[in-house]
Amino acid sequence: MSNLWGRNLRLSIFGESHGEGIGIVIDGLPAGYPLDLDKISFHMARRAPGQSELTTPRKEADQVEILSGVFNGITTGAPLCGMIRNRDTRSKDYMKELPRPGTADLTAHIKYKGYNDYRGAGHFSGRLTAPLTFAGSIARQILASKGIHIGAHILQIGPHLDEAFSDINAELLNGLTGLDFPVLNEAKAGAMKKEILQVAEEKDSVGGIIECAAIGQPAGLGSPFFGSMESSLASMLFSVPGMKGIAFGDGFDMANMRGSEVNDAFYYENDHIKMRTNHSGGINGGITNGMPIVFRTVFRPTASIGKPQNTVDLTTGENKTVAFEGRHDPCIIPRAVVVVESALALCLMDSLMEAGCEI
Amino acid sequence: MSNLWGRNLRLSIFGESHGEGIGIVIDGLPAGYPLDLDKISFHMARRAPGQSELTTPRKEADQVEILSGVFNGITTGAPLCGMIRNRDTRSKDYMKELPRPGTADLTAHIKYKGYNDYRGAGHFSGRLTAPLTFAGSIARQILASKGIHIGAHILQIGPHLDEAFSDINAELLNGLTGLDFPVLNEAKAGAMKKEILQVAEEKDSVGGIIECAAIGQPAGLGSPFFGSMESSLASMLFSVPGMKGIAFGDGFDMANMRGSEVNDAFYYENDHIKMRTNHSGGINGGITNGMPIVFRTVFRPTASIGKPQNTVDLTTGENKTVAFEGRHDPCIIPRAVVVVESALALCLMDSLMEAGCEI
Amino acid sequence: MSNLWGRNLRLSIFGESHGEGIGIVIDGLPAGYPLDLDKISFHMARRAPGQSELTTPRKEADQVEILSGVFNGITTGAPLCGMIRNRDTRSKDYMKELPRPGTADLTAHIKYKGYNDYRGAGHFSGRLTAPLTFAGSIARQILASKGIHIGAHILQIGPHLDEAFSDINAELLNGLTGLDFPVLNEAKAGAMKKEILQVAEEKDSVGGIIECAAIGQPAGLGSPFFGSMESSLASMLFSVPGMKGIAFGDGFDMANMRGSEVNDAFYYENDHIKMRTNHSGGINGGITNGMPIVFRTVFRPTASIGKPQNTVDLTTGENKTVAFEGRHDPCIIPRAVVVVESALALCLMDSLMEAGCEI
Amino acid sequence: MSNLWGRNLRLSIFGESHGEGIGIVIDGLPAGYPLDLDKISFHMARRAPGQSELTTPRKEADQVEILSGVFNGITTGAPLCGMIRNRDTRSKDYMKELPRPGTADLTAHIKYKGYNDYRGAGHFSGRLTAPLTFAGSIARQILASKGIHIGAHILQIGPHLDEAFSDINAELLNGLTGLDFPVLNEAKAGAMKKEILQVAEEKDSVGGIIECAAIGQPAGLGSPFFGSMESSLASMLFSVPGMKGIAFGDGFDMANMRGSEVNDAFYYENDHIKMRTNHSGGINGGITNGMPIVFRTVFRPTASIGKPQNTVDLTTGENKTVAFEGRHDPCIIPRAVVVVESALALCLMDSLMEAGCEI
Repeated sequence: MSNLWGRNLRLSIFGESHGEGIGIVIDGLPAGYPLDLDKISFHMARRAPGQSELTTPRKEADQVEILSGVFNGITTGAPLCGMIRNRDTRSKDYMKELPRPGTADLTAHIKYKGYNDYRGAGHFSGRLTAPLTFAGSIARQILASKGIHIGAHILQIGPHLDEAFSDINAELLNGLTGLDFPVLNEAKAGAMKKEILQVAEEKDSVGGIIECAAIGQPAGLGSPFFGSMESSLASMLFSVPGMKGIAFGDGFDMANMRGSEVNDAFYYENDHIKMRTNHSGGINGGITNGMPIVFRTVFRPTASIGKPQNTVDLTTGENKTVAFEGRHDPCIIPRAVVVVESALALCLMDSLMEAGCEI
Repeated sequence: MSNLWGRNLRLSIFGESHGEGIGIVIDGLPAGYPLDLDKISFHMARRAPGQSELTTPRKEADQVEILSGVFNGITTGAPLCGMIRNRDTRSKDYMKELPRPGTADLTAHIKYKGYNDYRGAGHFSGRLTAPLTFAGSIARQILASKGIHIGAHILQIGPHLDEAFSDINAELLNGLTGLDFPVLNEAKAGAMKKEILQVAEEKDSVGGIIECAAIGQPAGLGSPFFGSMESSLASMLFSVPGMKGIAFGDGFDMANMRGSEVNDAFYYENDHIKMRTNHSGGINGGITNGMPIVFRTVFRPTASIGKPQNTVDLTTGENKTVAFEGRHDPCIIPRAVVVVESALALCLMDSLMEAGCEI
Repeated sequence: MSNLWGRNLRLSIFGESHGEGIGIVIDGLPAGYPLDLDKISFHMARRAPGQSELTTPRKEADQVEILSGVFNGITTGAPLCGMIRNRDTRSKDYMKELPRPGTADLTAHIKYKGYNDYRGAGHFSGRLTAPLTFAGSIARQILASKGIHIGAHILQIGPHLDEAFSDINAELLNGLTGLDFPVLNEAKAGAMKKEILQVAEEKDSVGGIIECAAIGQPAGLGSPFFGSMESSLASMLFSVPGMKGIAFGDGFDMANMRGSEVNDAFYYENDHIKMRTNHSGGINGGITNGMPIVFRTVFRPTASIGKPQNTVDLTTGENKTVAFEGRHDPCIIPRAVVVVESALALCLMDSLMEAGCEI
Repeated sequence: MSNLWGRNLRLSIFGESHGEGIGIVIDGLPAGYPLDLDKISFHMARRAPGQSELTTPRKEADQVEILSGVFNGITTGAPLCGMIRNRDTRSKDYMKELPRPGTADLTAHIKYKGYNDYRGAGHFSGRLTAPLTFAGSIARQILASKGIHIGAHILQIGPHLDEAFSDINAELLNGLTGLDFPVLNEAKAGAMKKEILQVAEEKDSVGGIIECAAIGQPAGLGSPFFGSMESSLASMLFSVPGMKGIAFGDGFDMANMRGSEVNDAFYYENDHIKMRTNHSGGINGGITNGMPIVFRTVFRPTASIGKPQNTVDLTTGENKTVAFEGRHDPCIIPRAVVVVESALALCLMDSLMEAGCEI
């Protein structure tokens, strides 16, 4: 599906970076949930541009107008449409004829035969993650009321690594969401930020890795085969511009591990089946096992950079150079944290509904 | 969706490891394609168990009976159902009450309230990849007639690494599919095989990484956002038991790279837009750019092992030990290669149809 | 979707009339339901051909082999595939080059460029309703355990009308399912049967109307807009070959009625909201209101008839005459009753699951 | 699906009658189509309220704001969101506690546990057909460029009948869309209008039947089984509030017809296969046969009426009387004509795309 996602919680996303607006229709939300608009604004602000010197100077309040699905502040069960007007657009920075390497400029041009809205990457802009964050901010409110909490931290930017998740609890996760620059080991933040400022100065960009977790979800969520929790989450996360990889639990390290190492052994304690380790990242056979869900996603360096790069002129067929003068993020990671969390929240909502859980 | 995948090419999969049979319904296949049954058998044999000392000794011919959708050897356009009878089942090796760590035994038990067919992991068995391989073997016949070729190699098993793809061409990819143990650098195969035999002797298992590629697909395939090529492919591949991570192009290495390094610059040559590098793995903004699609998937060590592991008795609530006496693969990688290729073939078929390509 | 239906209960149907077999994959069935195979056989026999002089002499036991999804006689929650082998095929009666007027012979030929399996209408055969009846026979077992009952009667064949439903109760509906030729007023059956024998003798066919009802379903099932109960049911029923119209409650008579006549007024009795009339057929705004669901479907006269009809020769481009020598039903109504019931059962299952009802 | 429809052309609808606004996201539109905004406004005005004394006095310009998917007046291929603000709302006319018989007031209250926006029927309002008309007005522009034309007329209101379609051509259909009160036989309009004014005076309402047709579509559109043209069209049309029945071709009359009467015989003329009759309404086996698509839909009398009716007080459990003082249509038929046409246009677009037609 192109702009559609989900079976029980169904998302339909729309908009372009420099058009009238962007938004999302969320269908399947349970009726009767009061929305905490401050919490929505809080998460929207975490993603919004122009918040610090680490991000693009484009200023967008990203105020969401709720057009439907809420009555007297409470969800009605009907489709909820959230719409955000675009404000601070500077379309002159974008040149239709010179596709920027690494972006969707060329592929969108080909797919849509030149009719795509190329300004600010149009429908392919990272700006489309704002509606996803909005939807996620609603989902996490409902999840929190069920004792399910979500959080993420910056695991790597350039050569600088944070510590990985070890003991995960709700306090830790909620604490992370309150941080401007969420890392587990605060001492690591400085070098990361410095790296971002450095690449910004070089008119370049840098990639990074986000590690995300959820706690409190029951065992038994997800479906076999195509409906696995991993399939569901990956299908959403790979829609986020710049995301190039995802791995659950021990992920790519498992290539050099033994079954006896990575199998999370069971034991009984207080009438519950427990595990002492979580190499599987909380999922076995595509179904949650009750342990925290843990996964990592890698984001490429922002494709739009100020450095001159070789490109072609689509109108004349000449080899040219392009140096993007527009505003951009030198590193998308700080703003992507809440987007990754949102995707996890939405997947868990969908899975809870599929499992017939009382929501 | 649970057992369903796809929008234009639609798959519906069914079966359990030790039940009557397994199979798949493929809807949306174009009418008029003659099926080369030998090629289907060839790919089925690549996945089938019992082929060498590196794999499980379970013997299954995996002969597919085509129940519908083919008339006089040619696709009719109606749903094609392929069905495989289970033959060499040894269900006594499986104990309902002792879930094997790392498998879906416990999560399936919870999700289905104890009613799941637990024998040989039931519907969660890697055996369900046989129907996927069957469907893929049809898709790749059609793709090959369009000049699209798919191949994969074993990049890593345990500590042993093959070389990564560099120059990719049809001959290379088709050559790989003819190999029993596909690696780019033959000198690496020995150590990998030895590793597998070693862990088998230890009644243990080991993981690995497969690198897969496609060449010849046009630019412009895939859809923005939830319909990205990466989303589509990941949603299918994460249904394959044991798959725990996927990354496109330079993947996780991008965390420590600069935009100026990973952006694949454009140039004109002979009226075509080309790129000299392929850091993006052939996909920008979720849409193919005409370069080879390249990605890596990691598989966990097989969860079923002969070594004793701690578990619990679901009927008595006691802590127990389980040592799996049944047949299993010490490393799933050699048999998974064709499965990963099949997933890519099916995604490309679906995307070609979505793009309205003449098929 | 072509061969797919449903969101929570998902059906995937396959097969051709004269191919290896026909079948259905049912995904989303709840785990833990023991299947009463006798009840399945009972409903299959109601639809099976060759049961009386009123139907086609083709003999098919329509024995369903369950390939997956059932373990020890109980549903596992995994996809359930039921497969039926074709036995008594007489393909020589079918001529590829002479499309029979009123059938799908020509449209299938055009859509599939001549590659369709034309024998016995292939995938377009009414025989494909056998898998639907199988799936429905499972759904109605589960529904009955919740106090939901389904039944139907023959309302019209040719000029002969049965009485319409008035008081509907479980006993009445279950009684109807036990009848070979279900009518409310037994005195009407004779003329209807005579009409069928008469058209059979004339090598012609006749149409009819089935009236179907469900009782016991809770209020609140269905969804607004595209998910209305009427949308859901119509989308399935219009897949049944020969079905050309459907109307709920007072249906087409409403064109000449007043709002004050057809609005079903509410009253309180014993703490329940009730209605004395049921002009809406149990559905308001696409959602069940707790009253019986009642609707009518019209079936065209069987298109395959023995009388000579004008047609064209697809290979030579000549005007020709075709007189179908094969076996066919002079009236599809008697065998279609259980198919219509099955569609209602499957829709109700899907809606119950969507509503998160404990199943 | 609840607010979602379609496979190739995908609709997502949202909004409530008295909320901030209503709208639709259309995904899958081909890139490169210039939109004629006047034609959109023309069709919107045909459905808009307050146009004549025959309709509700509520005044809504129904001006659609296009938020995305269009750039320089041309479709981009990205999701197109059209949004309409609600203006002339008079919510005080609606009482949450007194459900109006025949409406969705009670069923929505039950399904959404009292949290539904009850004002003006909320999400269940006929007002939601405005976005559908908007989407249809785009689809019919594209269809017209392919030589496909759609039109409809009022076949019945109360006891007054127009003539049925006989010879159908593009001129006739386009002529009908230009009429305020489209009937084939103008002499019939007077009595119908009088009937509407009469029921309005009685504070009552009346139902009616619309007959709709399309011409110019190629043979071969639609899919077998669940994807039949009839399934597709019915699944959309039954989402329109008040629609209670649909029948194709000779419809319910077929119950008393012979196969030899209703089978549309074939003949060759000028290298084309033709039919002289169209009893099947242009569809055989769910696939278009090249003849005009013809069907009828019945709409119930508007449920909201000024006459007092028995109801219950949901808060006190008392039997009460409700007489709706709000504005409503005494007959929905005149405004529903363009909605029915729109549904057909959208289904044809979806089918053309499914068939891989160049659009």
